[in-house]
Amino acid sequence: MPRTPKPVIRSDIAFSTPDRISVRGRDLPNEVLGHMNLGDFAYLQLTGREASAQQSAMFNAILITLVEHGMTPSAIAARMTYAGAPESLQAAVAAGLCGLGSVFVGSMEGACRMLSEALPAGTKSDDLEQLARDTVASYKARDVSIPGLGHPLHKPVDPRTPRLFQLAADNGMSGDYVKLMQLIGAQAERQSGKSLPINATGAIGAICCEFGFPWRIVRGFGVMARAIGLVGHIMEEAERPMAVEIWQRVEDEASAHLREAP
Amino acid sequence: MPRTPKPVIRSDIAFSTPDRISVRGRDLPNEVLGHMNLGDFAYLQLTGREASAQQSAMFNAILITLVEHGMTPSAIAARMTYAGAPESLQAAVAAGLCGLGSVFVGSMEGACRMLSEALPAGTKSDDLEQLARDTVASYKARDVSIPGLGHPLHKPVDPRTPRLFQLAADNGMSGDYVKLMQLIGAQAERQSGKSLPINATGAIGAICCEFGFPWRIVRGFGVMARAIGLVGHIMEEAERPMAVEIWQRVEDEASAHLREAP
Amino acid sequence: MPRTPKPVIRSDIAFSTPDRISVRGRDLPNEVLGHMNLGDFAYLQLTGREASAQQSAMFNAILITLVEHGMTPSAIAARMTYAGAPESLQAAVAAGLCGLGSVFVGSMEGACRMLSEALPAGTKSDDLEQLARDTVASYKARDVSIPGLGHPLHKPVDPRTPRLFQLAADNGMSGDYVKLMQLIGAQAERQSGKSLPINATGAIGAICCEFGFPWRIVRGFGVMARAIGLVGHIMEEAERPMAVEIWQRVEDEASAHLREAP
Amino acid sequence: MPRTPKPVIRSDIAFSTPDRISVRGRDLPNEVLGHMNLGDFAYLQLTGREASAQQSAMFNAILITLVEHGMTPSAIAARMTYAGAPESLQAAVAAGLCGLGSVFVGSMEGACRMLSEALPAGTKSDDLEQLARDTVASYKARDVSIPGLGHPLHKPVDPRTPRLFQLAADNGMSGDYVKLMQLIGAQAERQSGKSLPINATGAIGAICCEFGFPWRIVRGFGVMARAIGLVGHIMEEAERPMAVEIWQRVEDEASAHLREAP
Repeated sequence: MPRTPKPVIRSDIAFSTPDRISVRGRDLPNEVLGHMNLGDFAYLQLTGREASAQQSAMFNAILITLVEHGMTPSAIAARMTYAGAPESLQAAVAAGLCGLGSVFVGSMEGACRMLSEALPAGTKSDDLEQLARDTVASYKARDVSIPGLGHPLHKPVDPRTPRLFQLAADNGMSGDYVKLMQLIGAQAERQSGKSLPINATGAIGAICCEFGFPWRIVRGFGVMARAIGLVGHIMEEAERPMAVEIWQRVEDEASAHLREAP
Repeated sequence: MPRTPKPVIRSDIAFSTPDRISVRGRDLPNEVLGHMNLGDFAYLQLTGREASAQQSAMFNAILITLVEHGMTPSAIAARMTYAGAPESLQAAVAAGLCGLGSVFVGSMEGACRMLSEALPAGTKSDDLEQLARDTVASYKARDVSIPGLGHPLHKPVDPRTPRLFQLAADNGMSGDYVKLMQLIGAQAERQSGKSLPINATGAIGAICCEFGFPWRIVRGFGVMARAIGLVGHIMEEAERPMAVEIWQRVEDEASAHLREAP
Repeated sequence: MPRTPKPVIRSDIAFSTPDRISVRGRDLPNEVLGHMNLGDFAYLQLTGREASAQQSAMFNAILITLVEHGMTPSAIAARMTYAGAPESLQAAVAAGLCGLGSVFVGSMEGACRMLSEALPAGTKSDDLEQLARDTVASYKARDVSIPGLGHPLHKPVDPRTPRLFQLAADNGMSGDYVKLMQLIGAQAERQSGKSLPINATGAIGAICCEFGFPWRIVRGFGVMARAIGLVGHIMEEAERPMAVEIWQRVEDEASAHLREAP
Repeated sequence: MPRTPKPVIRSDIAFSTPDRISVRGRDLPNEVLGHMNLGDFAYLQLTGREASAQQSAMFNAILITLVEHGMTPSAIAARMTYAGAPESLQAAVAAGLCGLGSVFVGSMEGACRMLSEALPAGTKSDDLEQLARDTVASYKARDVSIPGLGHPLHKPVDPRTPRLFQLAADNGMSGDYVKLMQLIGAQAERQSGKSLPINATGAIGAICCEFGFPWRIVRGFGVMARAIGLVGHIMEEAERPMAVEIWQRVEDEASAHLREAP
């Protein structure tokens, strides 16, 4: 099948020559190494721009929030995988990341999407209150729960949320999206009669809108941060393993009724 | 099968209560967010200790070196995966990470292992020259190439290496392991008659020994850094895709001889 | 947090004792090995029932259809991964599988879901024609393309479809779901004025409904079949590699504009 | 960098034209579907040859042996992943496969490698007894345990082994490799004074040598078989989940000492 014209394969991220390595237009060895921290370099890698001091503070805080949250399903999956393939540490991290989907990290993406669809980039709203009411009503009409609200453990307040919002305010990044998220939370509580605190993923989703990030990439912040957390879990698993014990307990209990059948 | 005593499942990394989230003994919202950058938090997550200013500079530089290196096999695998499952960004990153094994990141691990086995932590050598000769000889005897030396593109010098070694010196982390790596490189060049510059993974392997990291975890630094790089590639792929074009070119060329057979 | 009553962890799939291994109530060594083929055992593993001769013929055909389709993005991702981590063959297969999502395998799931929602299991329709018209109209109203119709290469007929439908008829599995899929295809062609042949995933989706499989698991058939195909690609890659050549071509072309910039 | 001559990208597995799909030289719809079972098609995909009746019986039995073995670490990892990303079933299977490495499936590869290095394809030994003694001695000298021997649960006999060896004998595939494996097992028991029954992976490793498979691909049989098993686990997890309960128990126990600290 002739295909004309042949599309060009092109990337603007990086290039190498024998004596140079350039990422986003910066000479990596000389202009980046020793001059930037990892969070700022992540910002450069993703956006092609250098973070301002305010953006740096905020973006590092967002990523750090997402690194570690205890013995999550993703940490357990990584440890289980490492127990079977300790020579493939990278595959253990990959296995742990595979579960960062709609249930455990998706609400961050969902909150960012909800807010950016309610208030498209570059537009203004005269009446955020009304926008919040409309948004809550539309989720209710579709019988879908509002992303970024409520938490099974962190009640009545998710302790990360006020801190993230304070950092947003301190760094000049608390605009209409943060306000809209808060109004949506208040409105949802009023309509449901339940306590529905904005959780960390709701706060992060709103702040990602302030940054102007497209919602499709927001899950990626959770993925890259959690990769760090999972390496920590694997390092601990290598020293004091728990995977085999979990396996044996689960196996014993799960099949007891079969083994004991007459 | 009764197993007594039942081993305890225990992790020292993190815990949560309704109003607290603690990682490595720090209150995450109040003691970490806004007070640390991502590289420093990674150091805390992995070691349980806060990085000194020197460790922070060095560790951030190591991780940044590993984030991005162009359209690598791992970036291509991530983009291919994203083309088939754009709703599962996490799986695209995972697919890209799966290939960070013995060929492309392993030499970092290998260099760290070689050096820490030659000079076990806590020991001293009177004669690093002799140690370098013995190490090169033992690799030669086993007909195995020495990890961390040579690069297919970056010749005669890998531009990351002198910069990383300079940062190590600037931050008081240029000790016997860095020296031993340099002596091994010089010795290998002498014996082989070929140019064998220390590449970035050799430099990083040596500096990881200076940090005291166990060699088994060193590959993890590449994995967590590259997760950031891969999110950048996926973000670009979402905006200006190349995966389908690569696919069609490869498919067309690979099966041409079969399609055209009589 | 006390949680009462503590849910039970229970699986009905398999158990082992020192001298027995039982899967789905069969003694694996003595009742299964040598008495079953892999497709039939897959059916037993998934459903807990032995396949009849007709089900065996049909289920094996469905799975075989999904094993291999050339140098797909998933095959390329697996080969790229193997090039970096040849010691982790399992991770290369895993990387290839990660991309079997909404774009390349999802239409199978989508067709099965569409049909089973139009005609829920255990119900009957007096007027399949009308059901087809309603279904096509509802997709049109939502501006969503109908799953299982059309193919970029296989025109005007996907050669797998008539064969799969013939096997369904031969094996007594061509009922209302197959008819409904055909009516939907005809209706969609009439309304759009375009040629929209039922593709292999549309045919498989319909036959999966005849089997009574829940739509959520149908993607799994593609995943397990493709795992076989990917091992074949990796075996070929080990003998005659193409990954490094693809990488170098992509890298060269993608960054040419950056390398050549003044 | 000009590279000349440019290597050709070529695959001999499959091709498609608008009206044809060909795999390993067979017309997929007409010569394969309805004429082959999945195990036989896997054999064709991997080798390019059709299995004889004997090869079919043996290869299907090998693959079936590897599909399912209860609530293994790999099944737990897949279920954990599915709990977080139920929309990405393929990623849950991928996560489960990532752990099929040196610890849990590698002994199959190891046994095949040991035997094919002791008795390279196409060679003959006058004295298999001596070869067994030498092989055991060389593992002992390197202080490495012999792959394919011993099992933590299946004692004093792995019930799969005699059945697999019987099938090998029934199908004319019990030659020098099976004999050598048995002699190695007997020799290892004599030297160690311990019961070291040949386990399923030892039996499969030996039979794979009889087939003439290269040892590097043998792990792939476990990977593709287990993909089927994992889809079964995910199907059960969707209906009666256990992942969240496992998570909560592990989290509660693992961090109890931290939560309760003063």
